[in-house]
Amino acid sequence: MAPALDVRKTTTRLSDGRELIYFDANTQPGREGPGRDAPDRTAPGRDLPDNTAPDRTALGRGAPDRRRLPSAEADCGLRYDPLLAAWVMYSAHRQDRSYLPAAAECPLCPSAVGRQTEIPASDYEVVVFQNRYPALADAAASGGETRGLLGSRAAAGRCEVICFTGEHDASFADLSPQRVRLVTEALIDRTAELSALRGVAQVFCFENRGREIGVTQPHPHGQIYAYPFVTPRTDRMLRSVRAYTRRTGRNLFDDVVAAERAAGARLVRTGRHWVAFVPHAARWPYELHCYPIRRVPDLASLLPAERAELADFQLDLLGRFSRLFAGPAPYVWGWHQAPARVGRDALALHLELFTPRRSDDKLKYLAGSESGMDAFANDIVPEQAAERLRRLG
Amino acid sequence: MAPALDVRKTTTRLSDGRELIYFDANTQPGREGPGRDAPDRTAPGRDLPDNTAPDRTALGRGAPDRRRLPSAEADCGLRYDPLLAAWVMYSAHRQDRSYLPAAAECPLCPSAVGRQTEIPASDYEVVVFQNRYPALADAAASGGETRGLLGSRAAAGRCEVICFTGEHDASFADLSPQRVRLVTEALIDRTAELSALRGVAQVFCFENRGREIGVTQPHPHGQIYAYPFVTPRTDRMLRSVRAYTRRTGRNLFDDVVAAERAAGARLVRTGRHWVAFVPHAARWPYELHCYPIRRVPDLASLLPAERAELADFQLDLLGRFSRLFAGPAPYVWGWHQAPARVGRDALALHLELFTPRRSDDKLKYLAGSESGMDAFANDIVPEQAAERLRRLG
Repeated sequence: MAPALDVRKTTTRLSDGRELIYFDANTQPGREGPGRDAPDRTAPGRDLPDNTAPDRTALGRGAPDRRRLPSAEADCGLRYDPLLAAWVMYSAHRQDRSYLPAAAECPLCPSAVGRQTEIPASDYEVVVFQNRYPALADAAASGGETRGLLGSRAAAGRCEVICFTGEHDASFADLSPQRVRLVTEALIDRTAELSALRGVAQVFCFENRGREIGVTQPHPHGQIYAYPFVTPRTDRMLRSVRAYTRRTGRNLFDDVVAAERAAGARLVRTGRHWVAFVPHAARWPYELHCYPIRRVPDLASLLPAERAELADFQLDLLGRFSRLFAGPAPYVWGWHQAPARVGRDALALHLELFTPRRSDDKLKYLAGSESGMDAFANDIVPEQAAERLRRLG
Repeated sequence: MAPALDVRKTTTRLSDGRELIYFDANTQPGREGPGRDAPDRTAPGRDLPDNTAPDRTALGRGAPDRRRLPSAEADCGLRYDPLLAAWVMYSAHRQDRSYLPAAAECPLCPSAVGRQTEIPASDYEVVVFQNRYPALADAAASGGETRGLLGSRAAAGRCEVICFTGEHDASFADLSPQRVRLVTEALIDRTAELSALRGVAQVFCFENRGREIGVTQPHPHGQIYAYPFVTPRTDRMLRSVRAYTRRTGRNLFDDVVAAERAAGARLVRTGRHWVAFVPHAARWPYELHCYPIRRVPDLASLLPAERAELADFQLDLLGRFSRLFAGPAPYVWGWHQAPARVGRDALALHLELFTPRRSDDKLKYLAGSESGMDAFANDIVPEQAAERLRRLG
């Protein structure tokens, strides 16, 4: 049986009051060494935070943020669209965020003596911190709270950044399996902590990768959104699941996964605990959905053996994506977990991964039909996408 | 009172069997001359189609397509996503479509002797034809029809292209008011004809403009999709309207428009028959919704005076968009009309126009939160967007 990963968590604050958390794997020497993305630095001891790293120039887990940033006051608000029955997030301050900085100015790299980044330590494994330019934050709503048809309110949520590795030029597909497990443990921790915050309804963990889809920081990182509402996508899935259960007594996710396994033509990988397939009605040129075979509502419900196999799956699937085209494919992956307080017996945890790239030099854009009517057109037939992804294994 | 526009329609077939329709305005000499986008060519006579244009090298409305294209056999299909309760369109042949051709190879320019394009005539005002690379067509579904959880079927719809002018380098904002009226008459004609086709549930008329959003042909043109389903967006709006009517006895569109007019802060232009505003919960950096003050289900229901003022509004609003940034802003506009057979007393005709551009050098991308959860974040507060658009009038 796969052992649970032993994780040490060190919490600190940045100079503007934002929270930052280091996640370190306590490896047992001789059993599981650091991966290629975690060079053989002496890991900080258990009795931290302080500066106990043997290298005297190194900044430890307790190193302070010396930047004296002005206190974080995000101008975030929510507005309700009564026609689409959906909240929209506003964050006027985000227009100023940095855009594709050079590696020497990367704010997500570890700090060095004389160069302070968002992460005060001079190395890290996985680190999470509150986004300096959040789309959601507990702050005054733009224009104040209004009731009635055109309602608005404070954002009452939180946006966090998760860095997967200190290595600026790496990507998720380059991580070691142990590092991927550590990332998952961090996501589990954040999902639990953020779900417990007053007003948070749902937590979404995702990675955007590639400047073609607007990524402003090339350093390998993901994001964690704690929404004060159940998102439109999740609401629609829950609606479908409930209607199906009323009609059949069964869970729709169970039957979709069973139907994909029975059909076989779109399967890309089947493991002992996980299955990955191109969905029958994929919207994107290359899209993969990855489910645990045992239905669970969220990442926290996964057993150690499921978590261990998941790391292999994620690395394998992202590796296939990286080999699809001449250059690295831009992609988005996101974890669909049950909301904090509703649909916990209905929604099935799964990972969705897609690239908008449809060939070496062409992207799928969301134009009139998609942006105006939510009606997707896809040029690549799912069985062909699955066939290509199978061959890239 | 504004006179109705007198339109002459000439229908022909391309060499692969696709339908092509010329729409010409019958102007009365001395009253309303051709706009700057319609150079002073002698208009073809009323008793066409044939080659009666005085220039002997000109190709008239009856000119044949001499290309001998293979017969159009679109490989289109629909698949149902049971979790999102939505159909997705597949069209494997679209991967081959031409991409940003040079002006000399533009397939949407008029033909000339020795160079045959999609439009056989050597000039046109407005022309509509079946898309050579459609997302929807009456053809065998990819993989055939299947029932059950993972359903698929033939596409049973139609995609048409509408060219607004023969001038390759123009844009919609350059058209004359009369030409815009002719475009609207063509959209009305197509909405009626396509809605009458067996299996068509909804017609959507839209324009995508700008390579930033994936437009493959720079020649000024729009598109007309005849869907065999009510789109997810329209379905959601109808659901909201019905719930609101059950609760209040009123129409939600009426009350949203009244609330925007009463609030005033987001109004961009108010006319005698139309009103245009940035919606309270806009999703895009610059977004405008334009409603007739008298609620109607579709374009065909507009009176001549409403149609006349609409042309001014469209030109004015697109002109403001073209002045927002250093370069021309990419944009999408689309007409929300009631579906062919449902919601005709609920849905209010309106135009939605947006640009994903948020500054001279930055675009709004739909990344993790939008593409994964349909939860939109917008960096520009709607009142500020409205203020800028008001000043650009």
